[in-house]
Amino acid sequence: MLENALKNRNSHIDYKEKARALRERLSVLQLKIRDARLPVIIVFEGWGASGKGSMIAEVIKYLDPRFFKVSSTMPASEEERRYPMMKRFWDSIPEYGKISVLDRSWYRELALARMEEGISKDEYKRRISSVGGFERMLSDDGYLIIKFFLHISKSEQKKRFDKLRDNEETDWRYSETDKKRHKHYDEYYDAFDDMLERTDLPCSPWNVIDTEDKAYSRFKVLEIITDKINEALEGKAPKAQSAVEYPLLCMSRLGDIPLSGKIVSPEEYPERLKAAQKELSKLHNRLYMKKIPMLICFEGWDAAGKGGAIKRIASALDPRGYEAVPVSAPDKTELNHHYLWRFWKHVPKSGHIAIFDRTWYGRVMVEKIEGFTPVSRCNEAFAEINEFERELTDSGAIVLKFWLQIDKDEQLRRFTDRQNTPEKQWKITDEDWRNREKWELYEKAVDEMIEKTSTAYAPWTVVEANDKLYARLKVLETVIAAIKDRTE
Amino acid sequence: MLENALKNRNSHIDYKEKARALRERLSVLQLKIRDARLPVIIVFEGWGASGKGSMIAEVIKYLDPRFFKVSSTMPASEEERRYPMMKRFWDSIPEYGKISVLDRSWYRELALARMEEGISKDEYKRRISSVGGFERMLSDDGYLIIKFFLHISKSEQKKRFDKLRDNEETDWRYSETDKKRHKHYDEYYDAFDDMLERTDLPCSPWNVIDTEDKAYSRFKVLEIITDKINEALEGKAPKAQSAVEYPLLCMSRLGDIPLSGKIVSPEEYPERLKAAQKELSKLHNRLYMKKIPMLICFEGWDAAGKGGAIKRIASALDPRGYEAVPVSAPDKTELNHHYLWRFWKHVPKSGHIAIFDRTWYGRVMVEKIEGFTPVSRCNEAFAEINEFERELTDSGAIVLKFWLQIDKDEQLRRFTDRQNTPEKQWKITDEDWRNREKWELYEKAVDEMIEKTSTAYAPWTVVEANDKLYARLKVLETVIAAIKDRTE
Repeated sequence: MLENALKNRNSHIDYKEKARALRERLSVLQLKIRDARLPVIIVFEGWGASGKGSMIAEVIKYLDPRFFKVSSTMPASEEERRYPMMKRFWDSIPEYGKISVLDRSWYRELALARMEEGISKDEYKRRISSVGGFERMLSDDGYLIIKFFLHISKSEQKKRFDKLRDNEETDWRYSETDKKRHKHYDEYYDAFDDMLERTDLPCSPWNVIDTEDKAYSRFKVLEIITDKINEALEGKAPKAQSAVEYPLLCMSRLGDIPLSGKIVSPEEYPERLKAAQKELSKLHNRLYMKKIPMLICFEGWDAAGKGGAIKRIASALDPRGYEAVPVSAPDKTELNHHYLWRFWKHVPKSGHIAIFDRTWYGRVMVEKIEGFTPVSRCNEAFAEINEFERELTDSGAIVLKFWLQIDKDEQLRRFTDRQNTPEKQWKITDEDWRNREKWELYEKAVDEMIEKTSTAYAPWTVVEANDKLYARLKVLETVIAAIKDRTE
Repeated sequence: MLENALKNRNSHIDYKEKARALRERLSVLQLKIRDARLPVIIVFEGWGASGKGSMIAEVIKYLDPRFFKVSSTMPASEEERRYPMMKRFWDSIPEYGKISVLDRSWYRELALARMEEGISKDEYKRRISSVGGFERMLSDDGYLIIKFFLHISKSEQKKRFDKLRDNEETDWRYSETDKKRHKHYDEYYDAFDDMLERTDLPCSPWNVIDTEDKAYSRFKVLEIITDKINEALEGKAPKAQSAVEYPLLCMSRLGDIPLSGKIVSPEEYPERLKAAQKELSKLHNRLYMKKIPMLICFEGWDAAGKGGAIKRIASALDPRGYEAVPVSAPDKTELNHHYLWRFWKHVPKSGHIAIFDRTWYGRVMVEKIEGFTPVSRCNEAFAEINEFERELTDSGAIVLKFWLQIDKDEQLRRFTDRQNTPEKQWKITDEDWRNREKWELYEKAVDEMIEKTSTAYAPWTVVEANDKLYARLKVLETVIAAIKDRTE
C-alpha cells in the first residue's frame, strides 16, 4: 500500500488556504458529532519524523478542547502486558459524541513489535485478528474509525532527522531508536506494508499519505476526515464485514433439562464441599504460577443461587488473586460507551480470577426484553460476544459461563421465603416480581442465548439449581475440571 | 509502638471459637454497612511472613464477595511514579457501602521506601503528611479506616522463613528481598516504629498485633474490626483532627472589582494573542523537559467565556501533552465516592497539563446552593480543597485557578445573543436562566470561596471578562508568568 501513498499532484492549488477552510468546516462538524452522539477515533501511524505531532496539531487547531482528546500510545508497561493486548485500548475508547485522536495506537503492537520485540509469526497473525475484531466491533456500534499512515521516503526521513539533530532545541527528539529504524528503513517498509495490507478493513480502511509536501498532506488529511464524518453523519459509513462465525456446541433447551433428582444430601454435602474447596485452593495457586487468567461468569433466574455459588468459590481462593464483579444497570458514563467497555475494565490479569455476578449477556436478555436497546442491535451481540470471548481465550484466559436453572415453582418458594424472612428481604424487590411475570419471554431469550453463544472455547454450563447444594458442588467441580484441564 | 504489640494473654480461652463467632457477626454487619452506605478500608501492613495473606483470608471468609474487594499494593510502576504519590490510592477507594481490604497500602511508600529507595528525610516527612491528609479527608467524608500492623519478632520471622524455604510448594515465596529485610531486622524495626508513631492519627489509629499466636491474633483482628464497624454504624467513629490551616492571600470581593476599562482593542488583539501563544508553546516544551505537571482550572459565571479562554490556551499546546477536562454533574458511580475521587482521576502526570472546565469548587457553589450536599459538609470543603491542592503543589504541580468575572448586564447580553443565534443555541439552557435568578446567592458563595481558598501555592486569579479579548489575554499571560516563574 505504501507505494500508492497519496501525493501532491497539482502545484497550482493553494492547499494552505483549502486546509484552513476545512478546519473551519471541521469545527462546525464537531457540534454535529456531539448532537448525533457519533464517536470518532482518528488514528495516526507513520514513520519517525513523518510529522504525526504537527499533523495532529493542525487537525485539532479549531476544535473545542472539551469534545476531543489526544493520546499518545506508549509501549505497554509490564503491568499492561499481563492483560489481553486490546484491554488498554478498550479502556480508552471515546464517549459517544466525542473525538479521540491517537498518536500511534494498537498498531504499535503489530509491525513494530514484529520488528523489535521478536513476536512469532503466529502471534503477529493473532494480533492482526484481535485488531480486526476490535475495529469491527466498534464500527458495528457506530464508532467511526479513520486511520492514517504518514509516509516518507528514506531520503526525506534522513533530511528531517538531520535537521532535528542539528538544532539544539530539538536534538533530544532524535533518539537511538530513530537511528536504528532509519538504518533498517527497507525492512521496516516491508513490515509496515504487510501490516497495512492485512488491516485494511472495509469498516476502517487505511489512508496512506505522503507528507513530503506538508501543505498538501495536511489538506488531504483534513479532507478525508471531514468527508468521512459527513458520510457517517448521513448514515453512509461503511459497514463492518460480518464477524467470523465460530462453531457452536449443541445445547439442550432449558425446558428439556430435568431438574428433579439432581440433589445432594445434606449429610454428604459438607465433606464434598470441603474437598472441592481444598482442591480449588490448590489449583488457584497453579493458575497463578502458570499466569493463566480466568473469568467465571454467572447468569441465572432471580433467586437461583448465584450469590451462594459465588461465595463457595470465592472463599476457596486467595483473596489477593480474584475479584468479584457485581453487575447492575449501567450508569450514565457507561451508557456513553460501547456496551462491552464496562466489562473490559474488569478483565483479569494473568494468574487472576474475575467472578462476574451477571455479565455482558444482559445485552440479549434484559436489554432486549425491556427494549433498552433496539432488538436488531441486541441480535448482533451474539456474534460480538463470541468474538469478545474468543479474544479473551486467544490471549490465554479460561472463560466459564454458568446458567443457574430453577423452575418457576422453586422461584416462587424462594421469593416467598425471602419476603417472609427479615434478613433476606433486601434480596427481593418489585422488579424481581415483574421479571417473574415475563418468565416465558426470558426463557425464550435464554434458550437463544445458550444456543448461539456456546462455543467450544467458552461453553455454557447449565446448572440444575433446584437443589442449592447440588448446584454449588456442580459449579465448583466444573471450575476445578476446567483449571485441571488447562494446567495438567 | 511495636513494643506494645497486642499479645495473647489468656491461655484458657478458646480464641478459635470466639473468632468464628465474630466472623459470623461480621457477615451480618456487612449488610448493615451496605444499608448505611458506610465505606470501610481495612489496611494490613506488617513484617514479611507475619501472616497478612492468611489473616485477610480469615477476615473475609464469611463475607459476600460482591460487597468487598481485596487488593495487593505493588511497588509503583514507572508510569505511576509520574503522578502524585496518592493518586493511585485515591483511584481505588471503595464505594460507599463497600469494604476494601488492602494487603499493603500507601504505607509501603513510607518506611520501606525510606529503607530501600533512598528517599530523603524531607521527602519522607512530606509523604507522612500526604498520608495524613488522605486519611483525614476520607474520615471526614465518613470513610472508616482500620489499620493493622502485624508484628513478629526476629526469631519468629526466622522460624517462618525457614519453614517456607523447606517446603517445595512454598519456597518460591521466600525471596531475596525477604532475606535482606530479615538480615536488617533491627533497622527495619526502627523504621516501622517511627512510621507507626507518626501516622497514628485520631481518625485512623494503628492496631499493632503480634501474630506469633495465630488464634489469638486472628480473634483480636476480628474483634477490632467488628467493634470499629459497630462504632461507625452508631455514629461514634473518631473524628479527624482539624486539617492544617494554610495562610490565605487577601482578595477583593467580586463587587469591588472594576470591570470597565479592562479592554483590548480588536486591532492589537491578534498580534498579542499570537505572541502569547507562541511563548506558551515554547514554555510547554520547557514544562515537559522539567517534568512539571500543571493544572489550569476554570470557574466563572455562565457565558463568562470559559470555553473561549480554554481554546486559546489549548491551541498553543502540544496536543499530546495536555488534557481538557469538562466537568458536569457527577454520575451514579461518582456519587458513590468521595467528591474528590472523580477529579483525582484527571490529575496530570509530570510534564503534562490538565485544563479543567469547572472543577471541584462545584462543591461550595452549586452543591451548596442547590442543596445537593448538606451545607455543613460543603463548608468543610474549604479546608479539604486547600489540602488537596497543597498535596498537588507539594508533589511538584503548578495549580492555577481562574474566576471569569462578568457583570449581570453583560451576562444578559450574552444569553440573549446565544438565544438569537442558531449555532449558539446549544450553549444556553433553562438551567442557565434559573442560575441567573440566583446571582446574588452565587456571588456570595464565590466571594467566600475566593476568600477561603486563595492560598499562596494555589491562588485564584479573578479575570475581568466583560471584554472577551482582554480576558483571554489575561489568562494566557497569567499562565505564561506562572510557568516562567517555575522554570527560569
